[in-house]
Amino acid sequence: MIVLYTDFGAADPYVGQVHAVLARDAPGVPVIDLLHTVPRFDVRAGAYFLPALAAEFPSGTVFVCVVDPGVGGSRRPVVLRAEGRTYVGPDNGLFEIVARRAPSAEVRAITWRPGRLSTSFHGRDLFAPAAALLARRIEPESAPAVLTPPQGAPWPDDLPQVVYIDHYGNAMTGLRACAVPAHAVLEAAGRRLPQARVFADVADGEAFWYVNSIGLVELAVNRGSAAELLGLRVGSEVSVRASRAPAGGRVRRAPGPA
Amino acid sequence: MIVLYTDFGAADPYVGQVHAVLARDAPGVPVIDLLHTVPRFDVRAGAYFLPALAAEFPSGTVFVCVVDPGVGGSRRPVVLRAEGRTYVGPDNGLFEIVARRAPSAEVRAITWRPGRLSTSFHGRDLFAPAAALLARRIEPESAPAVLTPPQGAPWPDDLPQVVYIDHYGNAMTGLRACAVPAHAVLEAAGRRLPQARVFADVADGEAFWYVNSIGLVELAVNRGSAAELLGLRVGSEVSVRASRAPAGGRVRRAPGPA
Amino acid sequence: MIVLYTDFGAADPYVGQVHAVLARDAPGVPVIDLLHTVPRFDVRAGAYFLPALAAEFPSGTVFVCVVDPGVGGSRRPVVLRAEGRTYVGPDNGLFEIVARRAPSAEVRAITWRPGRLSTSFHGRDLFAPAAALLARRIEPESAPAVLTPPQGAPWPDDLPQVVYIDHYGNAMTGLRACAVPAHAVLEAAGRRLPQARVFADVADGEAFWYVNSIGLVELAVNRGSAAELLGLRVGSEVSVRASRAPAGGRVRRAPGPA
Repeated sequence: MIVLYTDFGAADPYVGQVHAVLARDAPGVPVIDLLHTVPRFDVRAGAYFLPALAAEFPSGTVFVCVVDPGVGGSRRPVVLRAEGRTYVGPDNGLFEIVARRAPSAEVRAITWRPGRLSTSFHGRDLFAPAAALLARRIEPESAPAVLTPPQGAPWPDDLPQVVYIDHYGNAMTGLRACAVPAHAVLEAAGRRLPQARVFADVADGEAFWYVNSIGLVELAVNRGSAAELLGLRVGSEVSVRASRAPAGGRVRRAPGPA
Repeated sequence: MIVLYTDFGAADPYVGQVHAVLARDAPGVPVIDLLHTVPRFDVRAGAYFLPALAAEFPSGTVFVCVVDPGVGGSRRPVVLRAEGRTYVGPDNGLFEIVARRAPSAEVRAITWRPGRLSTSFHGRDLFAPAAALLARRIEPESAPAVLTPPQGAPWPDDLPQVVYIDHYGNAMTGLRACAVPAHAVLEAAGRRLPQARVFADVADGEAFWYVNSIGLVELAVNRGSAAELLGLRVGSEVSVRASRAPAGGRVRRAPGPA
Repeated sequence: MIVLYTDFGAADPYVGQVHAVLARDAPGVPVIDLLHTVPRFDVRAGAYFLPALAAEFPSGTVFVCVVDPGVGGSRRPVVLRAEGRTYVGPDNGLFEIVARRAPSAEVRAITWRPGRLSTSFHGRDLFAPAAALLARRIEPESAPAVLTPPQGAPWPDDLPQVVYIDHYGNAMTGLRACAVPAHAVLEAAGRRLPQARVFADVADGEAFWYVNSIGLVELAVNRGSAAELLGLRVGSEVSVRASRAPAGGRVRRAPGPA
């Protein structure tokens, strides 16, 4: 199985162009569009969101991961192997957290180059063809490498920031459940948010946080948009204020990606 | 064939996660993304839109239908069989209109539970795996049941409200063609709308209603957005004012999901 | 392979309905969603964007192309064969540029009609079923024809206008690289834009133009939105001002559909 994880957008031609390459180079291999709305150009947000989503996929899955503002520059294409999964993409920090959390990780710089290589669309020209080879158990030419450590902003083990906002307005953070006390009160955008088990346990319009279905701390509002209500955006900071008993206990009707 | 009908959004990771489950549990079965933009949390709008879309699909189709704000609460997962089609989803009203319009309908509560069941994403964890079983003609453990009657707002046989607005700005209603006189004048948002056969029969920028390609009354503007021009949103009321001769007769160039 | 190119939108039910028809009529044939966000009703923009995208696809590909505001009127359904590819869609100008640029092109009017033909959704009822036949090497009933010359606005060989804006805010034009001197300065929205090789060669926030991965002149901003910064929209005019040395030479981190 080949899984796509990019900032190519859900409505532009780029995803279809990649599918066409995969249909040509790996016919019959199932291709899953996992996410094409990684916050654009935001390698760090993409890096913290990726391992939570990837953990659902079985050993043998090949991921094509492209958030690549430096395309056409000097960053290398790499293959990362970790926990039985294979990741193809740019060596720009996008694989930093997957690699760091894995018991062991093998990195190789892809030295193979396709016959046609544009300057601006390596997803189509290099990463997808390389992934097609890997899905067919053919090794593109490569050399042992180590990931280039990302520069600039801090890269802690868990990122206390919003990394993705879904269309309901739920705000996922780069914090795993294990990084926050179970009944902590969180603060975001100047508001204190109690913990709840699920939407159905809090009143309509009430803001809370919970551990979402991929194990991340998520800020949410029952039947409403946390992003709008709290003024959250990707990069908004989240902090732990205190620990106390969870909100709710009542059962009410509630939203979410059911 | 498995058909997905949800409010998961067209751009978030939820749809890809469901596809991954179906690829694992029902490999080789075609999966169609029919709609992932059912108005969010709006079970009633989804309930009236579903039968018009589902009628196009052949006997044997398995639908995964998820608009499920109460996920994690007490609502049951159910299977509905009606007119040769099978529907899997929450017992929250979403299947009310499909069942009501069918000559006969069989409902079963799904008592089977997967090994892993999150509190907030039963689409991935329960409904998709159950649908995969059904598509493979394996019956998940279940018990005879009746649908829980929906509460609150009225649920007439045809709903005189906007239930979906497409990206052209066309506003589909919960009214079937048979519920409105063929040449009626409709009123919506304080405006009177004549009937026309199709976009090509009215002038650019002119508002009208017509019977759309799935048999629903739709409010539209030729080469324009009815939603913007008339200020329509999901839930806007529509009423029959009078009957008279249809608009148009002229043939002009015109828009629509051609 | 069947490729879809429409203005049906990426989030409405229309695409899924077409997929259902193709799964029924051409089971097992791969279907690629190339683009469903051709600017709505904009046949001319779609006509100039299509050949740049189509050129990537191999001989034998069948395209279903639908931007069809005149559906239900008198425009004919046609099949175009050019450079080994087959295009099915309305005879309204959408195929004008593909045909004009091909060394030779064969056009046939489709006289075959399906058992069920709605007035407003020929993509589902006529074009997709016809494409399914063609993909299976069955010829739908047709007659020799010539494309109807498009009316109204000018249709030059290259269109000096924006024809598509992607979600990054990059603005693609209807100008092929061969239509503009390699290091020309372009003007759009009152701003002069130097040429660069790729995003990574210009500073953050700097506007430039480059030849994109499908050979079109594209207006862009490194790590920013050209559409927002320059106030561009589909139809914005682009002109060649002068030729001089390219921008950049520096290597910086930069965005794009990598």
